[in-house]
Amino acid sequence: MKLLLTISYVGTRFHGFQSQPGLRTVQGSFQEAAERLFSKKLLITGCSRTDARVHANNFCLTAETADGSPLPAIPPEKLPLAIAPLLPPDIALLSAKRVDDSFHARYDVEYKEYVYIILNRPVRDPFLADRAYHFPVKLDAFLMDCAAKKFIGRHDFSAFMAQGSKVVSTVRTIKSFDVVRDGETVRITVSADGFLYNMVRILAGTLVAVSEGRIEISDIEKIIASGDRRLAGATLPPDGLYLNRVVYRQTPPEN
Amino acid sequence: MKLLLTISYVGTRFHGFQSQPGLRTVQGSFQEAAERLFSKKLLITGCSRTDARVHANNFCLTAETADGSPLPAIPPEKLPLAIAPLLPPDIALLSAKRVDDSFHARYDVEYKEYVYIILNRPVRDPFLADRAYHFPVKLDAFLMDCAAKKFIGRHDFSAFMAQGSKVVSTVRTIKSFDVVRDGETVRITVSADGFLYNMVRILAGTLVAVSEGRIEISDIEKIIASGDRRLAGATLPPDGLYLNRVVYRQTPPEN
Repeated sequence: MKLLLTISYVGTRFHGFQSQPGLRTVQGSFQEAAERLFSKKLLITGCSRTDARVHANNFCLTAETADGSPLPAIPPEKLPLAIAPLLPPDIALLSAKRVDDSFHARYDVEYKEYVYIILNRPVRDPFLADRAYHFPVKLDAFLMDCAAKKFIGRHDFSAFMAQGSKVVSTVRTIKSFDVVRDGETVRITVSADGFLYNMVRILAGTLVAVSEGRIEISDIEKIIASGDRRLAGATLPPDGLYLNRVVYRQTPPEN
Repeated sequence: MKLLLTISYVGTRFHGFQSQPGLRTVQGSFQEAAERLFSKKLLITGCSRTDARVHANNFCLTAETADGSPLPAIPPEKLPLAIAPLLPPDIALLSAKRVDDSFHARYDVEYKEYVYIILNRPVRDPFLADRAYHFPVKLDAFLMDCAAKKFIGRHDFSAFMAQGSKVVSTVRTIKSFDVVRDGETVRITVSADGFLYNMVRILAGTLVAVSEGRIEISDIEKIIASGDRRLAGATLPPDGLYLNRVVYRQTPPEN
């Protein structure tokens, strides 16, 4: 029996999700709290790696005992309140349920949704420092949305991957890609069956380049086909990026 | 000639607005940036003191040269962008205009509006840590709003002032006082010609006590009349408090 846990975190003071020796990570901080709660060594598997400074509204992970012994019988719905005093203020456990041992937090993802927030006004907002990318020149959200639609579907996204990344396949399927303006904020929402390293931040940078007239919408197809990272837009900073939602292939059985 | 400046700041890492030797304050940080920009010693006057950890969406202050010499002729509308690189990330200058020497940032206030934000759900939200008061038990915002209306008008608010405060008069006029629920957030908005020390935090604590049935709406009039701090509610933490708006008696002349 495993637990499927949904957490939320402010990424600013973490070196990403995945444990790294000597660095403050979400996995490390969460694992420490959960091991204290359960008085057991745990094995934690995340749905994704997120980079340093990237946030999560809903990040999924599983927890199981490292030695295969049963977890203490705390009802899952009581876990969010039980673990709260043990977690640092920048992580919260939102919900928990039991899942079958066959369930895998990463391999069973059907799609993930990321949001990229741009504060689009001349003056910055101290409440959004580290929580949005500040772009002072007016963006054309409608044009960006039109450009976003060109990415939808199954493509080789090598042109939108940080150089030097090693992956078996660079083919991904973008399911939806929307840009909307809400007052002084431009909100980019993209969902896909998987993302390459820095892919959302490069896609967001490409949409900004479209708004600025440095990339034409009619060139997007060619840029995708080229596989040439240099033709896509800049990699925007991590501060505006949120893992917003993870959808699994099947509703994990609650047992 | 003075400048009237509107700033916004996240109060978490400041020991309040007012300069204090050896402590990080909003006034201290802002003054340092402005003096670098103008290459002049400045005299800064704020509309209010705010406590440690209290935030401001719109805080007004005036700046003038300490020696009475003219300020460098930077057009006021250029100041927000000019000073931005010199300010720390938790302060932003939103707007600036010239006002007459007779204008006073504190004495000319007609009323100030504070907002107190309560995150009202069982589990906390890491994005609101230090930015809202987390109250896990469901609050009755309608009842709190009814209670809030009892405070409107000119009263002696001694019962709603931190003990040991020294002020000439404890009479203040509350102009409006509203409580609304927005999903998992309860937002308390109060405006008055002035506030006593900790007054908004004690008023908010009193409304929470009403929701919990520890104070009856019918007792509020008596509590105000008693002048007894012990009969009012608890002082809620500073993290949920925002100075939201300052309205001056007359629109300061733009000269």
